[in-house]
Amino acid sequence: MNIAIAPLDDTLVDALRHKIDTKTKPVGSLGRLEALALQLGRIQRSLTPALKRPHVVVFAGDHGAATAGISAYPQDVTWQMVENFLAGGAAINVFARQNEIALRVVDAGVAHDFGKREGLINGKIAPGTANYLERPAMSGSQRDTAMAYGRQLAHTLAEGGCNVIGFGEMGIGNTASASLITHCLTGTPLPQVIGRGTGLDDAGLDRKHMLLARALARGGVPANPLEVLAEYGGFEVAMLVGALFGAAEKRMLILVDGFIVTAALLVAHALIPAITGYCVFAHHSGEPGHAYQLKHLNAAPLLDIGLRLGEGTGAALAWPLIQAAANFLDQMASFESAGVSDKR
Amino acid sequence: MNIAIAPLDDTLVDALRHKIDTKTKPVGSLGRLEALALQLGRIQRSLTPALKRPHVVVFAGDHGAATAGISAYPQDVTWQMVENFLAGGAAINVFARQNEIALRVVDAGVAHDFGKREGLINGKIAPGTANYLERPAMSGSQRDTAMAYGRQLAHTLAEGGCNVIGFGEMGIGNTASASLITHCLTGTPLPQVIGRGTGLDDAGLDRKHMLLARALARGGVPANPLEVLAEYGGFEVAMLVGALFGAAEKRMLILVDGFIVTAALLVAHALIPAITGYCVFAHHSGEPGHAYQLKHLNAAPLLDIGLRLGEGTGAALAWPLIQAAANFLDQMASFESAGVSDKR
Repeated sequence: MNIAIAPLDDTLVDALRHKIDTKTKPVGSLGRLEALALQLGRIQRSLTPALKRPHVVVFAGDHGAATAGISAYPQDVTWQMVENFLAGGAAINVFARQNEIALRVVDAGVAHDFGKREGLINGKIAPGTANYLERPAMSGSQRDTAMAYGRQLAHTLAEGGCNVIGFGEMGIGNTASASLITHCLTGTPLPQVIGRGTGLDDAGLDRKHMLLARALARGGVPANPLEVLAEYGGFEVAMLVGALFGAAEKRMLILVDGFIVTAALLVAHALIPAITGYCVFAHHSGEPGHAYQLKHLNAAPLLDIGLRLGEGTGAALAWPLIQAAANFLDQMASFESAGVSDKR
Repeated sequence: MNIAIAPLDDTLVDALRHKIDTKTKPVGSLGRLEALALQLGRIQRSLTPALKRPHVVVFAGDHGAATAGISAYPQDVTWQMVENFLAGGAAINVFARQNEIALRVVDAGVAHDFGKREGLINGKIAPGTANYLERPAMSGSQRDTAMAYGRQLAHTLAEGGCNVIGFGEMGIGNTASASLITHCLTGTPLPQVIGRGTGLDDAGLDRKHMLLARALARGGVPANPLEVLAEYGGFEVAMLVGALFGAAEKRMLILVDGFIVTAALLVAHALIPAITGYCVFAHHSGEPGHAYQLKHLNAAPLLDIGLRLGEGTGAALAWPLIQAAANFLDQMASFESAGVSDKR
């Protein structure tokens, strides 16, 4: 893949700042929304940026290691939750509907035969990854296919007029995968980036620690981020990496959800650091490893309300704040236009 | 005023918790939204609470002390911003429109003759309060009239079908007023609850400290919260106190904005502590005194994005999260209804 992501340039920074600062409000009083408006203008290279056709794309995949007992839920929950997405009953359905975000669900590699299903995008690489306790989770070729698929999907959405995209995921066992990736790419000691995921009890958490230490003893810390991805990743994670690249290539604003999506971003960022210029971090996950990822990326999320569900729910819930940033820049009066006295 | 506010009872707590916990998500994974859903069900005494006709009411008033130089902006900005609200160009207009919240603007006591204006609710007590550097800001009778007006307004909105209400304010000088109230009602040393407001520079901040210390030396710390309100409050603050009471009496969910609205809540809470059961704290203000108010009320706000604008903007921006809490409770499938396996 030959990915071209332009770092955000400074051309419009002064003009955008002036526009933001002359709105009828004390300078800086809209806090983070002001930085968001600036980022958005820089991404779109425009003093009048506009958000169009917001989407959330949820990638689902299964993990070979899940059968070893790294999750509080059985592996079948992955396909059952995909069915729930298709039926409209999951949290991401509710929040996407509420905020008028189009939802796309992708089978990146679920261990289940859905047949041909309306509303489900079939990108299945294989019915689940291999068990990284025994061998690499996927081959280099599987990884590249997944990344290319995700990238193409983002391009297709961009060509349809979408310029703001949130990413989510579903996959029993994928917090474990994300922990291994986070350890390899941030250097944080493995135990610190392992958490309870969907809700392991103390014994389950101990077992997860033991199993992931064993996986790491087998696979080591590959030097190349793409090898890390193949060694420990999921198909949904690999597809996320490609989709992040594809979205940034098309200069879309990217809403990064929680621990798993940020793990995918760690891979993308290790290869092309400029990608973070296009990213907004939606929320601070309750999963403990997320804080280390955010620190590594020097990122501050918008929401901190204890979410740890995945599915892109944090991205969908943060969306109205992004919209508010674009709207104040576009719709607020200036001191001059409103005839309001400026600071004395 | 004979205010009757019922403390939230526990009748439905177990049933609501069960409903929340059997939704298709790990228990607790929606974080603060789960606590919000529980609070909403308790307020409405229903397992199927619904949010109806959301409003933000902005109370505007002028402060006699503003002419002494406690703000970075001239006093005229109060009426000019009211004009901006009426023209639809202020931040609160933008965010209320975006989130489909009805906006009401009340002249509680602006030092300006608006004449009869469409869209402006005329509750003017007087054209600005007296200067609390010289005498109490308002008489007991003015305070009671303002409180009764705010209370009646909330009742009228409730009778129109509104059951969720955010409060905002506009008034040059009102962070100073809120600082004095906060000192009196929380016991926090005055200097710690004084901030830059709309953006005082260092010299301006020094002057604000000096003036407020002088005001306190004159008026002291009245023992009765209603006397504190009359001594240092604004008409918009007194009307807010009444509106908070009126909203809680009608079992509305109350979205508390920032430093000024929380100062009004301190007065209401000192008289009737049960009122906080009806409150959601929208955001953590950049104004330093807000943290002390929140600590006193044992409150944790939803958003922490550096807002310090007032106008009810934090309430309007937090609204989609409240809606999300109601929507997940109403619309998400349960493990049973979706055929998803529960924890093993």
